[in-house]
Amino acid sequence: MRSHTEYLTYQTKKKRELVHLTPTLEEILGRAKLKEGFMLVSAMHITAGVFVNDNESGLHEDIWEWLEHIAPFKEGYKHHRTGEDNGDAHLKSLLIHHEVMLPITDGKLDLGPWQQVFYAEFDGQRRKRVIVKAMGE
Amino acid sequence: MRSHTEYLTYQTKKKRELVHLTPTLEEILGRAKLKEGFMLVSAMHITAGVFVNDNESGLHEDIWEWLEHIAPFKEGYKHHRTGEDNGDAHLKSLLIHHEVMLPITDGKLDLGPWQQVFYAEFDGQRRKRVIVKAMGE
Amino acid sequence: MRSHTEYLTYQTKKKRELVHLTPTLEEILGRAKLKEGFMLVSAMHITAGVFVNDNESGLHEDIWEWLEHIAPFKEGYKHHRTGEDNGDAHLKSLLIHHEVMLPITDGKLDLGPWQQVFYAEFDGQRRKRVIVKAMGE
Repeated sequence: MRSHTEYLTYQTKKKRELVHLTPTLEEILGRAKLKEGFMLVSAMHITAGVFVNDNESGLHEDIWEWLEHIAPFKEGYKHHRTGEDNGDAHLKSLLIHHEVMLPITDGKLDLGPWQQVFYAEFDGQRRKRVIVKAMGE
Repeated sequence: MRSHTEYLTYQTKKKRELVHLTPTLEEILGRAKLKEGFMLVSAMHITAGVFVNDNESGLHEDIWEWLEHIAPFKEGYKHHRTGEDNGDAHLKSLLIHHEVMLPITDGKLDLGPWQQVFYAEFDGQRRKRVIVKAMGE
Repeated sequence: MRSHTEYLTYQTKKKRELVHLTPTLEEILGRAKLKEGFMLVSAMHITAGVFVNDNESGLHEDIWEWLEHIAPFKEGYKHHRTGEDNGDAHLKSLLIHHEVMLPITDGKLDLGPWQQVFYAEFDGQRRKRVIVKAMGE
């Protein structure tokens, strides 16, 4: 059994932004040298998420519109009594989920033809980390 | 450490359909011959999901009604500029999530008394795959 | 490779309640004696969830308000034809998700500075279990 851990750091230019992670994850798998196993990709912050879906710009616009509809930015969240203004970002993180587990088969990320992995920043413009931990043989 | 991987293929008759996976997953675990470990069950497509909940037909109707309310089928998704008409299926996949990780204990899926695993097809009538990868000892 | 499994039991006083799990999970990791690996924390019931977010009381109020807005308690769920009245709790469980996978690095839960783990009870006042299974080396 082997394990391999790396930390990715992102400071997005915009407050809300998607970062396509798949190429980076494939490079990490190359360094992990695993044939079979699991790769956990997990945001280490509570106002960000990680998800798997299509790398299509129109869909990404739909996702942002949908997130804003379901978990809108607004005043009035009770969390804002702490001085924060990012209550919506916490709810968006819960909705999208903060992590995915990817299968590794025969030395490759075993993803379907359109599956791509994205980091979703909901309260950016500051330094944030994503942990990538692979375990297997 | 051992790992075992199988791919399930589904072509649902209806556009939206639930497939009860638990019996199939128990058969796969029998072939995997693991006593302790994890089993990842993950849709390989971006318009489908996998979830754990009750096998009760009324609840399933509620789930479909709820999904349609939260992520409705409609014209006007920007994703449809590509010629697709399944923007809602992508959002439903994000909402339900595309994967679950099941614990394996003493050679069995360690599920609670009402926990059952379902494949949720949001844009079916075509061939789609689910990966099942178990790892443990 | 080693694995370690424990079952937590909760009977909440209120119907809807959050339980902060992180200290308990750190104790379990101490007993598991793993340096590197994964820890699955998964509700064994279909009307409860497990999530990672901030331990801030105002945010928790926001989360409850949001869950009630997105998956409201009401009569009329078709699941209630079985005699149950907890259709909303099933939908809340699907929305929040019933499990998380935590990374273990250098003998510790490898969480970000504000990441805490919570059990979310959506239909409590009865005995319910959470499985914690760690695997690694």
